Amino acid sequence: MTVDLKAYLEDRRAMVDAALDRVLPPESAPPANIHRAMRYSVLAPGKRLRPILVVAGAEAVGGRADAVLDTACALELIHAYSLIHDDLPAMDDDDYRRGRLTSHKVFGEALAILAGDALLTLAFRLIALEAARVAAPTTVGAVVAEVAEAAGTDGMVGGQVVDIESEGKTISAEMLDYIHLHKTAALIRVALRVGAILGGGRPEQVEAIGRAGRALGLAFQIVDDILDVEGNLAELGKTAGSDERKQKATYPSLHGLPASKARARELIEETKRLLVPLGPAAEPIRALADFVLERRS
Amino acid sequence: MTVDLKAYLEDRRAMVDAALDRVLPPESAPPANIHRAMRYSVLAPGKRLRPILVVAGAEAVGGRADAVLDTACALELIHAYSLIHDDLPAMDDDDYRRGRLTSHKVFGEALAILAGDALLTLAFRLIALEAARVAAPTTVGAVVAEVAEAAGTDGMVGGQVVDIESEGKTISAEMLDYIHLHKTAALIRVALRVGAILGGGRPEQVEAIGRAGRALGLAFQIVDDILDVEGNLAELGKTAGSDERKQKATYPSLHGLPASKARARELIEETKRLLVPLGPAAEPIRALADFVLERRS
Repeated sequence: MTVDLKAYLEDRRAMVDAALDRVLPPESAPPANIHRAMRYSVLAPGKRLRPILVVAGAEAVGGRADAVLDTACALELIHAYSLIHDDLPAMDDDDYRRGRLTSHKVFGEALAILAGDALLTLAFRLIALEAARVAAPTTVGAVVAEVAEAAGTDGMVGGQVVDIESEGKTISAEMLDYIHLHKTAALIRVALRVGAILGGGRPEQVEAIGRAGRALGLAFQIVDDILDVEGNLAELGKTAGSDERKQKATYPSLHGLPASKARARELIEETKRLLVPLGPAAEPIRALADFVLERRS
Repeated sequence: MTVDLKAYLEDRRAMVDAALDRVLPPESAPPANIHRAMRYSVLAPGKRLRPILVVAGAEAVGGRADAVLDTACALELIHAYSLIHDDLPAMDDDDYRRGRLTSHKVFGEALAILAGDALLTLAFRLIALEAARVAAPTTVGAVVAEVAEAAGTDGMVGGQVVDIESEGKTISAEMLDYIHLHKTAALIRVALRVGAILGGGRPEQVEAIGRAGRALGLAFQIVDDILDVEGNLAELGKTAGSDERKQKATYPSLHGLPASKARARELIEETKRLLVPLGPAAEPIRALADFVLERRS
């Protein structure tokens, strides 16, 4: 099976975008302002990498995309909540994100904080209800708990804490890997894993997909670091060089650009190697791995 | 069955406090600072009303306290997260809470925001894992989803949004009820409901307990409003009159003190009436209802 990556990504992104519009409360529903703020951030143009990985994880084990769409959306909501809170003045203090004003610049800080809270909360509601519909009853709790673990202090939030605490400091390569693995890779890994679990994957399939997700997630963040050095506002939707201005340690600052690019390539090769046991059904994930390496924004 | 309320509350509060210490990551676990911040807010002395209601909800339908303790803790974590975020400078801008400095005054705004995020995330992990252990498999998703709904824009966050947007404005009695029912009563109601569900309650029992929880939750917030007028720093752990300073509409400001006290009493009577079908097993909830009415802090 070969996959026309462009068509695959476009199709799955369209599915995800339609589902996001469906699962988010309408702007007409009170309290309208927070629903407006939630939709503003989530529905901003984006790669939808995490939700597409949920779908690809399900399809890699023979599951159906439409059985995991709410969980796919939930991963995007968690990603969006983390960006809203990261952009706050007390955190990274960013005015632009994906080429648009950040949430607190448009809606004020109070509503931005609450919109993030509400997106995280809604994410767990969506996962719980979808898992109850499609998963083996004994796995419903585990699916919710896995996502919570990946999003909490053993995952994304933990990575963000160490990232903030490391600003302006010289940190070790191990510490930088800790930040990248927790802040970024944990959610990408769990996106693939819960897709595979909800898709009915066998434990060894879920395990292999999870290991591939960890490598893919780390590669994604290294490429992000590289793009922050090499990219430009038009492609990134944010100002290049922002990591350096914020005195954030990155792969290029610690290892140099050539070694960073080599490491990203290695990790993508590792991702594909780990997916070999999945056979041709994992072709979309492999194609996504190539996309992660080659993306320009 | 008569309940020695003081002994009951003390016993259940001790159970909950021990469980909270157990479910929160230790301060020694990295990243240490966020775990310190999480523990600082959650383990501050408190009434533990919501977790005790989870336990009482379970016991009212013949369930066991030790089968619902993690969910009880989860409700306290959600309550604590909401207080941390509410106290932020961008929201209510409070320096003191329960007689101690608020989270952002001790740990800084960034860590306070992330500690709130992490507590909310951990709460869903705890509920999902406990429900998977003790609940009928088909109810696991529903339990998680109920709590998420009560905490989101149809519940607590929605109430907080309208509360903030109403500051300094004249609002109707209906709008004030909306704020109180969403910001406070939704979580109190769901605490009792999930306790009853996890305790194995029949649907009509869960329904009755939920209706009682709604009345109890509204009474709790009205008493809170009254205490803000009448209380003092030593009893409340915060400065009395803070609602007035923040130009928040309250029951006393809208209806006067005597009518507010009468309404609180009526709601507690309604709570007890709604619990009649539960029989003597609901005696602890009735005792808690009296406590809510008579509390001085």
